[in-house]
Amino acid sequence: MTTELDLVPAVSIRASSTVDIEDLIERFLAGDRLALAKALTRIERGGGESEQILERVHGRAGRAIRLGVTGPPGAGKSTVVSALIRQYREAGKTVGVVAVDPSSSFTGGALLGDRVRMQEFATDRGVFIRSMASRGRLGGLSGATLDATLLMDAFGLDIVFIETVGVGQSEIDVAEAVDTTLVVISPESGDGIQALKAGLMEVADLFVVNKCDREGADRLERELLLTQDILDDHSEKRQPEIVRTSAANGMGILELIEAIDRHQEFMQREGRLSRRRRENLARQLRAMLAERMERLFFGSSRMRSDFEEAVRLAEVREETLHRAVGRLVQNFLDRDSQDASS
Amino acid sequence: MTTELDLVPAVSIRASSTVDIEDLIERFLAGDRLALAKALTRIERGGGESEQILERVHGRAGRAIRLGVTGPPGAGKSTVVSALIRQYREAGKTVGVVAVDPSSSFTGGALLGDRVRMQEFATDRGVFIRSMASRGRLGGLSGATLDATLLMDAFGLDIVFIETVGVGQSEIDVAEAVDTTLVVISPESGDGIQALKAGLMEVADLFVVNKCDREGADRLERELLLTQDILDDHSEKRQPEIVRTSAANGMGILELIEAIDRHQEFMQREGRLSRRRRENLARQLRAMLAERMERLFFGSSRMRSDFEEAVRLAEVREETLHRAVGRLVQNFLDRDSQDASS
Repeated sequence: MTTELDLVPAVSIRASSTVDIEDLIERFLAGDRLALAKALTRIERGGGESEQILERVHGRAGRAIRLGVTGPPGAGKSTVVSALIRQYREAGKTVGVVAVDPSSSFTGGALLGDRVRMQEFATDRGVFIRSMASRGRLGGLSGATLDATLLMDAFGLDIVFIETVGVGQSEIDVAEAVDTTLVVISPESGDGIQALKAGLMEVADLFVVNKCDREGADRLERELLLTQDILDDHSEKRQPEIVRTSAANGMGILELIEAIDRHQEFMQREGRLSRRRRENLARQLRAMLAERMERLFFGSSRMRSDFEEAVRLAEVREETLHRAVGRLVQNFLDRDSQDASS
Repeated sequence: MTTELDLVPAVSIRASSTVDIEDLIERFLAGDRLALAKALTRIERGGGESEQILERVHGRAGRAIRLGVTGPPGAGKSTVVSALIRQYREAGKTVGVVAVDPSSSFTGGALLGDRVRMQEFATDRGVFIRSMASRGRLGGLSGATLDATLLMDAFGLDIVFIETVGVGQSEIDVAEAVDTTLVVISPESGDGIQALKAGLMEVADLFVVNKCDREGADRLERELLLTQDILDDHSEKRQPEIVRTSAANGMGILELIEAIDRHQEFMQREGRLSRRRRENLARQLRAMLAERMERLFFGSSRMRSDFEEAVRLAEVREETLHRAVGRLVQNFLDRDSQDASS
């Protein structure tokens, strides 16, 4: 895409952009909502500006409560989040939401739901909602999602939600970025426990049985209790509380907030919270390392052609991929020791 | 776990193991089912033996038709696969199934389903079913899953299914390992189209509307048609056919096989199949490279302690993770150019 900017000499762009960014950061630090919005857009774009912003504001982060909301599609995650936002706002707290959208071009439904919610809170200056494309190419939440959370935290929002949209691995990954993970399930969401199979049971700090006025809520809760007994206890994890809500009517939301508070208190004790945050940082750094190394690898035209050749050899079955890997890594390390910073 | 073997000196283990592997490979190449089973176990374990087996047999692969079966939980994926197996067996074809199990300790339901199916085909020497733990740590299907598929192919099975169990990213990844992807959905699986949101629409080569005798099948099919119109056309992808089945009664299975055949014919034309297989190989190699580099990185005690230090600095907000990444990669490449093969 060619924009007008492309025609301006690179140097002047960089100069004016540096000024812009400094100005943006100043306004961000002064609590300007528009600056947060613009900073989030730059974070999503990545690159130098994004790092410059993070560099300047990250020292302010760490005070927000980070809540993850996940669960099978149709369980009512957005409705639960909206109901929680209303309660938190009544209590005078400011709220941010990072809605993690699966990397899919088919997100009509998700975006629509978001738009409806954004409308409800559009005039509320204490609520900030942003959808982000979901996944890092190498798995896990995308770096941009985690950076956006950091940014909302640094902006001074009291509560920051990370909410997954639809199905996908991000449902589990979200737990790796927050202090408390709410798993929302309803009697109608797929086959109950079946829908929780892929790791969601293990990441739950709290179960929210939503649409609890529908048939099957009792059975669902019984199943949850049963499977909890079967699951191995992590020493660090508390048996998750089960809270019933009917979020569309605001039912059970106060109880849910109390349960969240109890979990936060539990995490505060014996250094659990800082331990979890440290683990989350390590996980994020690990993913960033892998992505950086991959970028370096494929940034080299020699490595790209070595790679293509290896694929060709595997295709005609002259060499296994396993054998190719060793050779490619060796070539990469030999070559790149001189110009790693490129 | 200490076994008797642990007490035998390492050298003699290696010697006898090499003999065993050679013997195993011979029997594999002679079509011995037990040898396939044992080879799969070694593939799952990974390491040198696994690579030795692949090295010797991979030249035989490439003839099987690889079918991916995915979709939301509860749609009846296993029932559809079982019904297809029965048909293929009647047509005299041999069949392998790699059931991809999400990396979760809570897989009671999935395994149970598998056992039931394994019982049905237990006495049929033309059917081979194996469950594999699902995911590579860096995303995508685990290397072992892909190697298992290769092995079944090389063994000479005519059809090899990769089938996902439960929810998770592997639902989408499976499409990256096969020639034809069947997305199974039922009027009962979650909120219909909602359940397909995370990329499943895009990867489908065929839609299987299962449990088509239940209420809502017409509506589901209409929704599928509608959303297909919305989705961008990939030039390489054909508009997926929609086939109705009631797999539990064997209804629609012949029609499904015909639709699979039509898709295979489509792929055979204009080099589409070899193009897809080449892309799949490239994707696999890319994942293997990332994993190998990560292993090298964390295999170094100096890099591990640099990494820990970076996490500590991020925790106390003295340095952003973005800044740490550059330094760590530089240190890694400087250091490891000498001993990359370690």
